[in-house]
Amino acid sequence: MKKDKPNSAENQDSPEIFNKTVLKKIQQARMAQPSTEELISGILAGEINALSRAITLIESSNPNHFLKANEIINACLPHANQSIRIGITGVPGVGKSTFIEALGKHLSNQGKKIAVLTIDPSSSISHGSILGDKTRMEELVKAPHVYVRPSASGETLGGVARKTRETITLCEAAGFDTIIIETVGVGQSETAVHSMVDFFLLLQITGAGDELQGIKRGIMEMADAIVINKSDGDNIQKTALAKTELGRALHLFPSKKSAWIPIATTCSAKTNEGIIEIEQMISKYIEQTKNNGSFDSKRAEQNEFWLLETINDQLKHHFYSNTEIQDILEKTKKAVQNNEYSPFAAAQLLLETYFKSKT
Amino acid sequence: MKKDKPNSAENQDSPEIFNKTVLKKIQQARMAQPSTEELISGILAGEINALSRAITLIESSNPNHFLKANEIINACLPHANQSIRIGITGVPGVGKSTFIEALGKHLSNQGKKIAVLTIDPSSSISHGSILGDKTRMEELVKAPHVYVRPSASGETLGGVARKTRETITLCEAAGFDTIIIETVGVGQSETAVHSMVDFFLLLQITGAGDELQGIKRGIMEMADAIVINKSDGDNIQKTALAKTELGRALHLFPSKKSAWIPIATTCSAKTNEGIIEIEQMISKYIEQTKNNGSFDSKRAEQNEFWLLETINDQLKHHFYSNTEIQDILEKTKKAVQNNEYSPFAAAQLLLETYFKSKT
Repeated sequence: MKKDKPNSAENQDSPEIFNKTVLKKIQQARMAQPSTEELISGILAGEINALSRAITLIESSNPNHFLKANEIINACLPHANQSIRIGITGVPGVGKSTFIEALGKHLSNQGKKIAVLTIDPSSSISHGSILGDKTRMEELVKAPHVYVRPSASGETLGGVARKTRETITLCEAAGFDTIIIETVGVGQSETAVHSMVDFFLLLQITGAGDELQGIKRGIMEMADAIVINKSDGDNIQKTALAKTELGRALHLFPSKKSAWIPIATTCSAKTNEGIIEIEQMISKYIEQTKNNGSFDSKRAEQNEFWLLETINDQLKHHFYSNTEIQDILEKTKKAVQNNEYSPFAAAQLLLETYFKSKT
Repeated sequence: MKKDKPNSAENQDSPEIFNKTVLKKIQQARMAQPSTEELISGILAGEINALSRAITLIESSNPNHFLKANEIINACLPHANQSIRIGITGVPGVGKSTFIEALGKHLSNQGKKIAVLTIDPSSSISHGSILGDKTRMEELVKAPHVYVRPSASGETLGGVARKTRETITLCEAAGFDTIIIETVGVGQSETAVHSMVDFFLLLQITGAGDELQGIKRGIMEMADAIVINKSDGDNIQKTALAKTELGRALHLFPSKKSAWIPIATTCSAKTNEGIIEIEQMISKYIEQTKNNGSFDSKRAEQNEFWLLETINDQLKHHFYSNTEIQDILEKTKKAVQNNEYSPFAAAQLLLETYFKSKT
């Protein structure tokens, strides 16, 4: 330790007894940091405190935490997978929070235990655009057996998705039987959510008349239901029209493996109109897909998807973070864009550089 | 050489002069194998023989040929990229060959030079399902300045796509101003074709009433036009109805970067009804996209797409062909599907094995 360090304990005029107190407090704090075993048994006993601490380990970038988190996840796995997972997406302003609050309260009244998670890859830029202000879902968090956890931030979508997916496992092991995952649909986040839920719901509001132009490419094919929110007051007629138009559009897509026919419907999260029906629709979906086996096969497919997706992500990450590749990539891209070089020959060159390099 | 080899020249009773003749012929054949430089100048002079030989080099799995092919492609690149590239897809039975023949003859009559290529990743299984019988497009191949080349076969989609994309470059350098690429849409082949053409056309026929259920997921979003073929005789009314329905469906998709509004129309490749209008529609598209800059920006994006796609393909190929990975992959997949192991932890394990291995 440098002798001239001004704030070190040794240089202060405090009596010896103070330093001992500080030391004891640090030791106690260390003692209070629960072991992996304690966290596991805490989670399995449904303790929110243990659950939250374990999720923090999942979200941590510390390699030690990573190992601990994996240990906890693997211990939780046999106790997980018993919940219903519902994905909810929609652009900002459609009322996702209010909707989740209304649906969540209805489920809570039925005795369900609900965990609400978010996927928000934009939060690193906007500093938490979805759940940044903690006042949201104010009423829902007060309901019994409800756990609201905002997204891990400052990450790639792949990273956020992994953390959310593993958080689902812990929440399920802690006894939550309904997991709601919300996303604002930045980048490919709705695809990520779709790949980790049983039921995928697109929330909409009525627009300037052409209801479909506002819907992001590909998202309608993923939806098990489109719910037009804010169907209240002067808006009721407009939402009814939108329901008809969207219902017709949904019909145009090829049928799903689950044999489920996607539904367009309306609701008002404000007045609670239609919320019960939406809960019943989801129950019907779960019943139907459990009966025809597609519920389980979809989950098995989703697990394999995340295995292969993670491998692919990491292979690319390893390639693009190679310093030799970084040195030449932009120049190569430009040359390829300008037809100075065939894309395939250029790729070959980069790959040779990569595989020869020692990193 | 084994002395008892029954058919070797030395053991035959033929006079010495015969063996010399054979030898000379072999030498001549070797001499006739043109150099890379000869092939390049031949292609640039529009010689079909040189073009065909160079494409054979592209299609070869011999590493020497690969190097030669790359040399030729790079020499051709500055002379390429001046054509219009048209992609045509549709399920078997919609009449792709007849349609291409009709469109091709019309273009040929206008003095265009047309190359027809195919992407058919299924050909390794079905032994050439698209152009296996060489009697197809019989009339078109007789037209002046028309070159028909079937797909490279026995390959992955990535391999076939690369070869087709590089064949386009050679055809363009050889002076072909219209490149038509046909695919039956097996696997992701229509996505591959879409990523190498300027105009993407989906060919359809009328079905049992619900025109849209038969269309493969995602393909409608890619189409710049849907053409309902076989609009002749008793079929005219049905195709007109399908045109209306498909036109409405196309309208539902978000608008394209090119600002082009996709069109549904009808034709009869048999009677030539509508073929001129389709050619005019494509010309209008090219004019519009060249004017608003999206023609060039789309091509630059496509080049970058193939660069990144090839890198990703090869990274995955390298990973999955690793013997240590192959030994444990299936078992790991099963464990993940059955929730015995988290997909992310399993991926991590596989990746560690891969990066530690020496191959």
